[in-house]
Parts: sequence; C-alpha cells; structure tokens
Amino acid sequence: MTSAATPAYRRLSVQERRRQLLGVALSLFAHRPPEEVSLDVVAEAAGVSRPLVYRYFPGGKQELYEAALRSAADRLELCFAEPPAGPPTERLTRVLDRYLAFVDEHDAGFSALLRGGSVVETSRTTAIVDGVRRAAAGQILLHLGVPSPGPRLRMMVRTWIASVEAASLIWLDEGKPPPVAALRGWLVDHLVALLTATAATDPETAAVLAALLARESPDGPVGTLARRVLPVVADGARLL
Amino acid sequence: MTSAATPAYRRLSVQERRRQLLGVALSLFAHRPPEEVSLDVVAEAAGVSRPLVYRYFPGGKQELYEAALRSAADRLELCFAEPPAGPPTERLTRVLDRYLAFVDEHDAGFSALLRGGSVVETSRTTAIVDGVRRAAAGQILLHLGVPSPGPRLRMMVRTWIASVEAASLIWLDEGKPPPVAALRGWLVDHLVALLTATAATDPETAAVLAALLARESPDGPVGTLARRVLPVVADGARLL
Repeated sequence: MTSAATPAYRRLSVQERRRQLLGVALSLFAHRPPEEVSLDVVAEAAGVSRPLVYRYFPGGKQELYEAALRSAADRLELCFAEPPAGPPTERLTRVLDRYLAFVDEHDAGFSALLRGGSVVETSRTTAIVDGVRRAAAGQILLHLGVPSPGPRLRMMVRTWIASVEAASLIWLDEGKPPPVAALRGWLVDHLVALLTATAATDPETAAVLAALLARESPDGPVGTLARRVLPVVADGARLL
Repeated sequence: MTSAATPAYRRLSVQERRRQLLGVALSLFAHRPPEEVSLDVVAEAAGVSRPLVYRYFPGGKQELYEAALRSAADRLELCFAEPPAGPPTERLTRVLDRYLAFVDEHDAGFSALLRGGSVVETSRTTAIVDGVRRAAAGQILLHLGVPSPGPRLRMMVRTWIASVEAASLIWLDEGKPPPVAALRGWLVDHLVALLTATAATDPETAAVLAALLARESPDGPVGTLARRVLPVVADGARLL
C-alpha cells in the first residue's frame, strides 16, 4: 500500500510545484518586460533554487515563458465564456469587462507580448496568441448566432478583435485613460457601428444585425448609441 | 581632373550597387518568407558574388532585411501623401487604393512582417513598422483637420489603422477576396462608422464628423453608405 501511495503522492507534488512555478512566472512576466525576468528572479520569487526551476523547465526561460503564456491564454479564453441569454451587447459588455480586467492585471506582459519584436517571441508564442484570437472570434460568432459565417462577417469580427487589441495596447501605453467603463462602452459601440457599416453591403451581416436589434432593449448600449448618434449625423441628411 | 573624377565616379557606383542590391532584396523579401531568402539567393538574383553582398551589407541578411524594410516603409509612406482637396472619403479612397496595391505587390513579405514571430523581427524592425503606423495616423488626422487630436480621436484613428492591417493580412491569407475595390470600400465605410460611433461620446470627434459631412457629396462614399444603412437599421427604430 505504501509503495502504491508514494508514486501517487510524488506525482501530485510534481504537479503542484510546477503549478507554483508557473504562477510565479506568470505574475513576474505580467508586470515586467520578459528581458527583465531571469531564471534567478523566478527562483528567488518562488523561494527555490535555480537548478530546481531547470528540473521542471529544462528549456529554461523560454520554456517557462511559453508555459506561462499558455496558462495566461487559458485564463483569457475563460473570460470569453458567457451564457447565450439576454441582449447580445450586454453579454459583450460583461466579456469586455473581464477581458479589460485581464489586460489591466497583466499590463507589462500584455504589452511586451503584443507589441512584437520581443526577445521571447517565437512562432510558438505567436501561435498561442492566434489561438486566443480564434477563440474570441468563435465566441462572438456564436453569440451572433452564426457559427459558420461567410468571409465578410468573419473578416469583420477578426478586424474588430484587432481593434480591441490595438485599443488595449494604446490604453496601457498612455497610462490607462479613459476609465475602463468608457473604453469598454466605446468598444461595444465600435462593434455595433462596424456591424451596421458591414450590413450595408453584406446580406448575411444585415440579417445578423436585424436579429441583434430585435434582442436589444431601448436602455441598452444600442438604444443609447442610436439616440446619441442621431443629432450628430443630422447635418448629413442632405447627403441622402 | 582624373583623380577628382574617380572618387566621384566610385561614390556613385557604390550608391548604385547598394540600390541595386536593395531592390533585389526587397523584391525577394516581398514574395517569400524571410527564412527562405539567404544571402546566396540575393547574390544569385543580383548576379554578384556573396562576398560582394557582404561588402555592402556587413551585417549580412539581417542588415539587408532591415535596409529593404526601411526602403519599403519609405515607399509605403509615399502612398499616404494626398492633396488636401475634395471630399475627405474620396481622398481616403485614393490612399487606400495605393496602400492595397502595395500590400498586393509585397504579399508574402507583408504577411511575414506583420504576423509576428518572424526570424528577422527585432526591436528595430518593429520600430520601422511603428513609424509607418505613426505616419499613417498623422496623415489621416491632417486630412481630418486635427493635427493635434485629443486622446479619444487619436485612439480611434490608431485602432482603425490596426483594423486595416488586420483586414489586409486576412485578405492575403485567404487568397485576396473580395476584389480590392470592395475591400477598400468597406475600409472607408468602417472609418465613417467608427467616426460616427466615437462622435456619439466625444465632442471633438463630433466636430470632426460635422466638418467631414459638410465636405461630402451625396454620390460619394458617405452618402452611399447612409442610403444603404437606413433600411438595414429601420427595425431598430423601436430602440429610440
């Protein structure tokens, strides 16, 4: 019985140690550019020796970075999960609040990762980031009720995701103005505006927009945006 | 006279040779991923020896890549120059046509550069690409009549540029559908939509949009978009 219990205990301990090192690495990589995080820094923060870090991550810093990134990507993808109930823009609001909290919490790491030219960037790290983008696009399309969209709608969703990333980077760069709620509100408005502009020339997007409008409430993001836009574009009536 | 003429001749020849090698490198890097372009390939395409390439670019392939990228960036920035006359969206249409022709012409290199994780990506190549983005943002803001914008308008323009890049990459990835004119029209619509959504909550952007609407003609991109959008959003009237 002892001989059966020991390996089980050891396997758990290895997992726990690995999880602890990953957690420490993730929190270090979240707040400093990767070139400032050495294995010594990780070992010290975890209260272990450098050789012990190497035993768990024989590939050294690059392996540790990629594992931390993988775990951050998994956490980020969890932020995207949202029950398919209620007005779509209100679901989006909740997802963006979780996403922006993640960006806020992992600021330096998020910037270093997405800015490009980072010392730890490889085709593997790019693939992990692309996987997160694909997951985000998949979730949005699911909530829009179009799991298999045509090329225009798919391109629209992917370019909006690129906008969200760019806005997040600018937000971090400039010391996080405006307040999160204003940034999130603007990103929701951006998606609604982009859906509307795309609907003008793509019948599939027009059907998606009609279905979305039918689920929105007058005091939700779409109603508020519409009431604010009308006076702003009133002067454009002569173009009709 | 001969001794004065010889160095002058030599200087010109050095310049010409350098320009020739750069042109060859640019055309190779434009159509293949950088890992497939060796110095041997460059030397052969230029009809010179490998040591001669090294004499002009002692840093080897990385130096040649960065010089070619610098020269491509200069050409791209030239695409942005547009006289400040006529309806702004028609100026944007012309700029986007030149930009998309550049993307089309440099497809593989453009993808490799912007996808991230490329073997030749460094903080220097990232800085060159960021310089192009800044130049693009500066030109757009100039045409919008706001050379020194507030944070919301600046963030709006920069996120739209990120969208254009993302759309260009997707367009290349998928084998270049839709036709360039449709893609360009959608990108113009996207900017107009984003200006409108941003104007809803930012007074500076509202003023910019009002000035833009005053310069547009009914048969231009804004009028066409407005006429197409109205029936699509008609069902949303209950949200007002």
